Amino acid sequence: MTSTEIKCWGECMDVAVQIAHKAGKVVQEAVKQEKRVSSKSTPTDLVTEADQQVEDLIISTLREKFPSHRFIGEESSAAGEKCILTDEPTWIIDPIDGTCNFVHSFPMVAVSIGFAVKKELEFGVIYHCFDGTLYTARRGHGAFCNGTPIQVSKEKDISKALILTEIGAKRDPATLEIFSGNMLKLLSAPAHGVRIIGSSTLALCHIATGAAEAYYQYGLHCWDIAAAAVIIREAGGCVIDTSGEPWDGCFR
Amino acid sequence: MTSTEIKCWGECMDVAVQIAHKAGKVVQEAVKQEKRVSSKSTPTDLVTEADQQVEDLIISTLREKFPSHRFIGEESSAAGEKCILTDEPTWIIDPIDGTCNFVHSFPMVAVSIGFAVKKELEFGVIYHCFDGTLYTARRGHGAFCNGTPIQVSKEKDISKALILTEIGAKRDPATLEIFSGNMLKLLSAPAHGVRIIGSSTLALCHIATGAAEAYYQYGLHCWDIAAAAVIIREAGGCVIDTSGEPWDGCFR
Repeated sequence: MTSTEIKCWGECMDVAVQIAHKAGKVVQEAVKQEKRVSSKSTPTDLVTEADQQVEDLIISTLREKFPSHRFIGEESSAAGEKCILTDEPTWIIDPIDGTCNFVHSFPMVAVSIGFAVKKELEFGVIYHCFDGTLYTARRGHGAFCNGTPIQVSKEKDISKALILTEIGAKRDPATLEIFSGNMLKLLSAPAHGVRIIGSSTLALCHIATGAAEAYYQYGLHCWDIAAAAVIIREAGGCVIDTSGEPWDGCFR
Repeated sequence: MTSTEIKCWGECMDVAVQIAHKAGKVVQEAVKQEKRVSSKSTPTDLVTEADQQVEDLIISTLREKFPSHRFIGEESSAAGEKCILTDEPTWIIDPIDGTCNFVHSFPMVAVSIGFAVKKELEFGVIYHCFDGTLYTARRGHGAFCNGTPIQVSKEKDISKALILTEIGAKRDPATLEIFSGNMLKLLSAPAHGVRIIGSSTLALCHIATGAAEAYYQYGLHCWDIAAAAVIIREAGGCVIDTSGEPWDGCFR
């Protein structure tokens, strides 16, 4: 990779921060309005008009600035676009992470923008739409919360750990049994506690700041984790598959 | 009750708001320091030096201003003081609600100050120590978030509801089985979602703002719920016993 290209990713990240702020403000306004809600894969897999509008805003802005780049967005993928990561510079976008929270105005909702080149994640930008916190990281340059460096927790003892997870939209008996069994194991350990906040992206940011020791979830998509993965790694943490193997990036 | 007495409760509430802010700032500073943690009833029932310090700050300030009043505080009760509600004006205090969150710097921690006279809750003040949100209500005068009126959700359909609960410090198999069974019932309904944020007081404030439809929990103490109960009632909601009977105030 040439130094010009590397410099370019820094400029891309500056644009990502600007657009995350702008999209976050749109979400803040949309929270106050009546939401038009429909469902996707299951009755609890919610989507609103705002999800699509915010994704369109982000992608159209980025496409104008970077016409040769590729885009993977949660709502475009739901609408049938293929979720394939190539070697090309690729933006990976969740316009409203925590859509169920957004529907209820439950104050944990984020805009998540990740960026990969040659299948390697280069930076991540996450904006908390309710409290305005901005989480950022660029590969090799550290992780930050509102510009202040952040680090994952050093605690390795499960009995002193706070664990985060999510429920997900799948509610068939087999899925719920696995969910419940995992929670009971952790609570019996006993971990200090388990928290479920309804935004995987913000939960992962709490891991990056060291406010919790671990997050686990089945069925994450690339847009749930692309930006957060860079932030966690740059904060000294690791991202692995639920089998314990190296993480595959969730491109499926 | 005379009009002078009623006016007095308004003045008491002004003092409660001031001291909640002051205590909240102490908690904000304490979050940044190394925490000295010990446990109370179970290994997961945590307490820190800050809990005791903040409770002492609140009670000593209030006692100086209102020497004839009575006080029920989480930490004083843990230290052996009796938790008995009389007809006297009584302050009911949780200095750090969400102690486990506080220990981890997980950003959901609140100061909770309730006030009862003749066994009736007169006002409640709750301060979110991380984002500075102030929830207040006085009996008959409405409920407010940062001075803006708030209302509970009007949604009555469980399949469109967001439900909040907590895990609690008891982790014996029987308790965990009840916890897990309740969650599975709600998730199978299916409710939109279940959230566990680790602060009963702030969860109850989310009910008052309409960000979630219901909160349930077993084993709450009066300091967990006194202030929030006024805020929820004044926001148009109701507080009932887990058996469905009228709520007994959790004075035990």
